[in-house]
Formats: sequence, C-alpha cells, structure tokens
Amino acid sequence: MKRAFFAAALTTCLAATPAAQSSPAAQAARQWRQQHERAIVEEFMALLAIPNISRDTVNIQRNAESIRDALIKRGVAARLISRPGANPLVFGEIRTPGAPRTIGFYAHYDGQPLDPKEWATPPFTPTLRNKVISAGGEAIPLPAAGTAFDPESRIYARGAADDKAPIIAHLTALDAIRAAGLAHKSNIKFMYEGEEEAGSPNLMPILQENRALFAADVWLMCDAPVHQSRRQALYFGSRDGIRLDLTVYGPRNELHSGHYGNWAPNPALQLARLLASMKNDSGRVTIDGFYDDVVPLNAAELKAVAEAPDIDSELRRELWLGSTDGDGLSLTELITLPSLNIRGMASSRVGAEASNVIPATATASIDIRLVKGMDPLRTGDRVIAHIRKQGFFAVDTPPTPEIRLAHPRVIWIDRGRVGLGAVRTPMDLPIAQDVIRVVEQVRGPTVTLPNMGGNLPLADVERPLDTRTIIVPIGNHDNNQHSFDENLRLQNLWDGIELMAALLTM
Amino acid sequence: MKRAFFAAALTTCLAATPAAQSSPAAQAARQWRQQHERAIVEEFMALLAIPNISRDTVNIQRNAESIRDALIKRGVAARLISRPGANPLVFGEIRTPGAPRTIGFYAHYDGQPLDPKEWATPPFTPTLRNKVISAGGEAIPLPAAGTAFDPESRIYARGAADDKAPIIAHLTALDAIRAAGLAHKSNIKFMYEGEEEAGSPNLMPILQENRALFAADVWLMCDAPVHQSRRQALYFGSRDGIRLDLTVYGPRNELHSGHYGNWAPNPALQLARLLASMKNDSGRVTIDGFYDDVVPLNAAELKAVAEAPDIDSELRRELWLGSTDGDGLSLTELITLPSLNIRGMASSRVGAEASNVIPATATASIDIRLVKGMDPLRTGDRVIAHIRKQGFFAVDTPPTPEIRLAHPRVIWIDRGRVGLGAVRTPMDLPIAQDVIRVVEQVRGPTVTLPNMGGNLPLADVERPLDTRTIIVPIGNHDNNQHSFDENLRLQNLWDGIELMAALLTM
Repeated sequence: MKRAFFAAALTTCLAATPAAQSSPAAQAARQWRQQHERAIVEEFMALLAIPNISRDTVNIQRNAESIRDALIKRGVAARLISRPGANPLVFGEIRTPGAPRTIGFYAHYDGQPLDPKEWATPPFTPTLRNKVISAGGEAIPLPAAGTAFDPESRIYARGAADDKAPIIAHLTALDAIRAAGLAHKSNIKFMYEGEEEAGSPNLMPILQENRALFAADVWLMCDAPVHQSRRQALYFGSRDGIRLDLTVYGPRNELHSGHYGNWAPNPALQLARLLASMKNDSGRVTIDGFYDDVVPLNAAELKAVAEAPDIDSELRRELWLGSTDGDGLSLTELITLPSLNIRGMASSRVGAEASNVIPATATASIDIRLVKGMDPLRTGDRVIAHIRKQGFFAVDTPPTPEIRLAHPRVIWIDRGRVGLGAVRTPMDLPIAQDVIRVVEQVRGPTVTLPNMGGNLPLADVERPLDTRTIIVPIGNHDNNQHSFDENLRLQNLWDGIELMAALLTM
Repeated sequence: MKRAFFAAALTTCLAATPAAQSSPAAQAARQWRQQHERAIVEEFMALLAIPNISRDTVNIQRNAESIRDALIKRGVAARLISRPGANPLVFGEIRTPGAPRTIGFYAHYDGQPLDPKEWATPPFTPTLRNKVISAGGEAIPLPAAGTAFDPESRIYARGAADDKAPIIAHLTALDAIRAAGLAHKSNIKFMYEGEEEAGSPNLMPILQENRALFAADVWLMCDAPVHQSRRQALYFGSRDGIRLDLTVYGPRNELHSGHYGNWAPNPALQLARLLASMKNDSGRVTIDGFYDDVVPLNAAELKAVAEAPDIDSELRRELWLGSTDGDGLSLTELITLPSLNIRGMASSRVGAEASNVIPATATASIDIRLVKGMDPLRTGDRVIAHIRKQGFFAVDTPPTPEIRLAHPRVIWIDRGRVGLGAVRTPMDLPIAQDVIRVVEQVRGPTVTLPNMGGNLPLADVERPLDTRTIIVPIGNHDNNQHSFDENLRLQNLWDGIELMAALLTM
C-alpha cells in the first residue's frame, strides 16, 4: 500500500493563470524570473538536495544555515534562533523606516518522513520531469540558461511543495524587488520553521521567548496547496487535529478459531462495533456533545464558502468515489465542520498471512479535526465518555491481566499530543482585506475560505505573539505532499514568486 | 505479533493418567515403552528432523519414504500412493485372516508453514525440554538408554504434536504387539497424508481412485489434542470451515484526512459497520437463515455434551478473558454450533506507521465454522446476501474504477476453497461403542463429544469410501500446534502408544 497523502490531479484545469499584473513588484518579478529561470531552479534544487527530515539534526542545521545565508546574501538581517532540543528557526528581518505595520512570512524547511523505496527517483536528488508521473512524466535535463522551462514541468523532491517552494519564492521575489529598485512599504519578517512536520513542539516556546523579535501585525503562513481548481486560495484558519489510538483486548494470545470460535470474544468485532457506533450512515458523528462548541461561520465566512468554485463532481470522478459523506454538503462546506476519521485499523493478519485465529487484540487509530470553538482536551474526553458508554473499561496504559479478567470489554486509549485548538482570522479585518486585495491584483479571482481542512501551527503563532495568521499557499494541489513523489508544478512557483513580490511590497 | 494457534496451558491437571490396564496390548505397550524410551524418542526425533512443509516436495517425499520403510520394517505391507501434483499418501495394510472388520488409522505427516525466527530452537532440530517454555522449560540432553524420561518433559519440533506423534505411537505399538506375540483381530489399514495442512486438496480424489484399497468399517482419525482437562477425548465429528476475504473501497488512493475528512467516505468505517451487523452483542450471528439447516444434537450427543468436564472458568482465567460469548453456554456446547469469526482486519496503518489519511481500502478475513446439516456454498451465499442487504455492491474480482464510481459502497468478496461440509458419526453405532469401550479400558473416563471445534478432512474420507470416522487424539492441548514452539508432552506419547496398541488389537 502506498503512503499517506494523495491529492487528485484534476485533469481539467478550471482556471488559467491570470494576466492581471497591476502590481509593479509582480511585474518586476515576472521579468526577473523570465530572465533567470535556470538560476532560480538551480538554487531551488540545491536547497532540495539537503535532506530535511526533522530528526536528522545535522542536515536540518545545514538547511537552516543555507537559508540564513541566502537571506543575508539578499541584504536581510538573518540568524538562527533555537532552544535546547529544538531545530532552529531561521529568522530574518527587513526594517522599513516609518512603516506603519509589520508583515511576517512563515514557511517551514523540514519535510515529512519518507521511505525512499517508494520514490520514482531519490527524494533528495531533485529531478525535473516533463509532466506528472501519473500522466507518464519522465525525467528531463534542465533547459539551457536563457531557454524557457515548460511551466507544466515539475520538480520532484521531498519538500519541493511542502514547504521549500515558498522559501525560494521569497528569495527570488527579493532579488526581483532589488533589481527593479522597488521599496518595501512595511517592515518585513521571515520565520522558517524546522519541525513543522514533527508537530511544531518548540514553535510556541521559541516565540514566547522572543516575542519582540517575532512581533507582527499578521503572519502570512506560506504553506499548503492552492485550490483544486488551480485558482489562488487564501485560508483564514485551519482545523486542528487530535489523535486517539484504541486497542481492544481479546484472549491473551491468538486462539484457534475452530477450537474456541463462538466462545472467546473477538476483539476485532468489539472494535468494529465501537467504531460503527461513532458515526451515522451519512458520516455525522454521533458522540454526545461533539458539535456543541462549534462556533458557526459568520456572514462573511458563509458568503465566502458559498462563492467557492464547485469541484465536488470533478473530484469524485478523479477519486473513483461512488458517493460522498455529509448529506449532500460540499467538500468546502464540510471542511468547516469537525470530522472524525479512522486513520488505520489492524487485527491479526489478512490475505496470505491470515490464519484461522481469534485475534488477541484489535487496534484503530482515529483522528479528529476540530474547528474554532472546540477544545481539544474536552473533545477527547467526550470521545472517551462515548467509548465508556459502549461498555468498555478504558485504561490509559496497556491493561494488566487482572484488569482484563475483571472486565468484559477492555480498551487501551492512547491519547496523542494535544494542540491549541483551531483558530480563524475574521475575513473582514482591515489587514485581511488588504491581503485579499493584493493577492487578487496579482492572481485574479481568489478562493477565500474560512479555514482549510488540514492543520498548520496557526495558534502556536497567534497565541504567543497576540497576532493574526492568514494562509497563503502557492503549491499545486496534486503535489503528493506527505507522500512519495512529492512535486511542484513550475507554473505554481512562477506564480508564487509574483505573488510574494507583491506581498513583500504591500 | 505471534502466529496462529495458542492453546492455554492449564496449570491444574484435572485428571491424572489412569492406571486402567485391562487391555493386554496396552500392558505390553507400557512394558515395551518403559524398556525402550530412548530408542522410541530417537526414532521420533529422526522423523521430526525431516522438514515437512507441504510445498517442500523433496522433503515431503523423504518423510513419506521414511514412514513407509518404518512400516515395512514392522512387517506391514506399505507403499506410497499418489496422483499428479499430489504429495504421496503412505498406505499400509495388515491382513488378518477371518477378521470380521477393517479398522483404518489416519494421521498426517505434513506440518503447518512456519517462520523459524519465531522458534526458541529450530523447528526441525527436535529438542527435549524439561518442561513447557512458558514455565521456564530448558533444553536438556536425552537421558541415557535404560533411564526413564521425565514424563512431563516435552519434545519441541514442527509436527511433534500435529501430527507425527500418532505415527510414532502406531509404530511403537506394533513393536510391542510383535514382541508380546499378540494378534490382531481386525484387518488394519494405515493412511498417512502429506497435505492435510494445505487443505487436503488431493485426499478425496486419491481415495476415489483407490476405493477398494482404502475400504474400512471405520477410519480412526489420529489427530488433534486431547481434552483441556488432560482426559482422553474422542470426537465423533468436526466442524467444517469456509473463509471469505472482504475488501471495502474508499478513495482511489489514501487522502489527507484534513483536506478530505468528512467528505470522502472511509472504507474502514464502512467495513466496521458491516462486521458489526453480522453478530449481536452476545455473539449470535444475525445473518438471515444462518442457523436454519443446523441438525440438532440427538439425545446421545446432548448427554455426552452435558457430561463433559467443565473447564470454562479455568480456561477463562488462563486466557485473561473477562467474559465469554454465547449467552452463558459452555465452550463444549458452543463448538457444536456454527460460528462466524473475524480472523484479521487491516486498513492503512496503525501505531508509529499511521498517517493522517482516509484509507483507500479496508480488508477483513472471516471464517465460518459449519456444523452438520449446513451446506458450505449455501452458507457463503447467505453471508453475501446479508452483505448486499447492507447496501454493498459485491463483486468477486477487484472492482474497476467504473464500478467504484457507480456504487456508493463497493466490496470485493474473495471466497476461499469450499469443503464438503461437517459430518458427525452417531455415537451409538456399534463400531462407535466398540471404540469407546476399548479407549475407556485403556485410558479411563473419556470425554466423548459430538464434534471438535476445528476441522479435519472427515468428509473427504467418509464420502468416497462410504465409511465413518472417529477422531482419536493423543496430543496435549497446550501443544502450540499451528504456531511456533509446537511441542509434545512425553506422557501424552506414552499414553498414546498404549491406546494405539489396544485399538490395533481390537
């Protein structure tokens, strides 16, 4: 089975790249890029060639120093900021005398863990392909300097989309701004995180220890993919996630299903019954109080959701889905609501490895996506209360034989790390409206949504700095982020450079 | 996770070895064994040292020839009988002039597939241990010839219990009978199968092609363990088994649970709901008609079940079970009823390997144990009808994208090989009563049950030969058959030799 994230490659490109170039910085960026495509790609590939798995601290350090030096080369005051046990944050700053506000640009340089065997070409040997692999894309050499790259060609490497692309977009945009002699109007700050894919365990502590340094009116979180329609997107929040690993216990060891079948309780069946009790037929969560604290969308948010392009039928076709959950609501609507999902399930073995046994245990991992208003701890407690109501004796460490003997149904619930909850930045704040205006000037009609479905460490930034966040994605949606064969479509990088140039000079 | 079969090691031995020795052959066997313990164990170990996995045809042949030669050495007319693609049956015959009947002795020389890494000592390096490994048993050298073995010591090897022990018991019993100058009263036949653990695919065809050769009034199926109480057992039937592998489909590939959770249906949840629909809270199968064709136990069978020792609370304690299924019925009662069991379940990954995905597929393997009267095909059809009633579009090969797009719920049902159904030999038949009498003379009060819970190829023998079968086990119940560290308790072998001597001269 292939790993992790897959985003459908919409074969129909619903929106072409806009010609709108009313931003001088974006115009300068386009010109610069057209003259330097090969150099930009080479700098990008050099950065992608440095392995960036969070726990690989030697290479993490190389990444951080390389990005710091690239900023310094562009005249940005940059340095590494860390704390014991943390991967360094790259911090950079451009002070603009008399500027009325400070705009921060966030991205992360670490990438998801991977299994190199799954990749078509090695994940840290960046490879240009003429198109996406699933459409038969083949590795091609870089065009000669001065020759235009096919904008539909793609760079394959871990981090190509998630999340080194925004870093190279920032750096190139700075080059273009300098070359055109344009000025910044705001103070600019950069923050490049090195452990986002490990759950950002040190982000909030570092920001708390360096509040003044990272203070900003808004942090633009440059991560995530643009809309599936290929239109530019802005997300004013994200869902937060919690995880619960559930293990149900049967007999001490696997038993012969002939000699003991009918008598020894089957933990896989107990788990199936439990999971089935958590949602109804249309996918609505049936756990008491699950939706109680959800803060409803306000008028502006509802309008934004209503105006988002309809991509459902196209996505369904691409994903071979004969139906969708949610009683007819659209994907855009459904990601503004909390969800409960079975990430994985296992009990004994299946297929050729299966034997005639009653399994000894059955395990499921569930993840819950929270929206604004839901407390992560309280939500977990509600799930556990539901599990208890189904007759399970719940323990938070593997149960002893005595516990298993004393209770008909025993479950070990392993609660994962809990985040800070989901946040949403009001779309009608002046700074939000400013960002939307600049983005639309450069990228045309933009899909603005109250939140994206996945999560980013928004609260980790907002809370210690008392600021706001807006997610500004540039990657293609079909980028295989978190999975093997992660890739960036070049046109998305080109567009991202122009967009960042405009935002850096707003 | 450890493999396959585990039988609880009852720490309390509920019944001691009976002293009853009213059979001259059993007495002769005891005397012979006491004088030849080391030679018996050495011959046993030599047989166990020949690897016996069904598909290992070279070693399978060595096993068969070795057993054939051991029979010939005892004066038994023996030869190998096979058909293209089959592992050979060892056939042996002792004609007794004027004998009123023919008694057959079945065992199998092949063993379950294994993973040597799981074994404490290599599976084909037979090892004597002073006690069971779970109680700290250690490898010990064989006592010198003429010194008694500790009857609680155990021989560890694949096939030690399942099912080479009866073969060595037959051979040793023949030695004792010859040495004591005792005579057979019946015609005797031997049949040692070489692919029982592979599902006996050629047993019935070979018997059909050689009906006269294998004709007998009864075949004693020398396989399986004695009762958990360590009392001798006789089973007058077995359950039959069918298997269904179920795969439910979600999105084409795994999807990011943040970006798509709530919208893309989760196949693990669909599977959980389906499995939960198949049984009620106390483990009774809720599939329409599932129990319709079950032939109820007759008076003699009901009496036998009622008289079986109560082992449930002791087994529950050993297996760490806080409850059992079946509305208070005993294990002995429940194995006379059909069962439906989840052998294994899998969807995406759990634990450290899990990712935040909506799985693409979810799979479960279920096995159903049939009792007398239930047709294997019709029972499978009923399960499939139930699955369809739950809203699934069922296919018997992996579904195409078109099928997945056209139906909200799609399931691939892979039906395993179907057997001939369960059979039960009436316990009041004269030959059955004769066997019970001989066994009780040697082994004392015997647990007689209408069927055992697992299955043996009884119908494969009965149908082509128009005969009856009775299961005569000798192995200890805690023998780890089908799993790693399979073992035979020596006292069980000693008892088995005496029992076989009596049956060979009945």
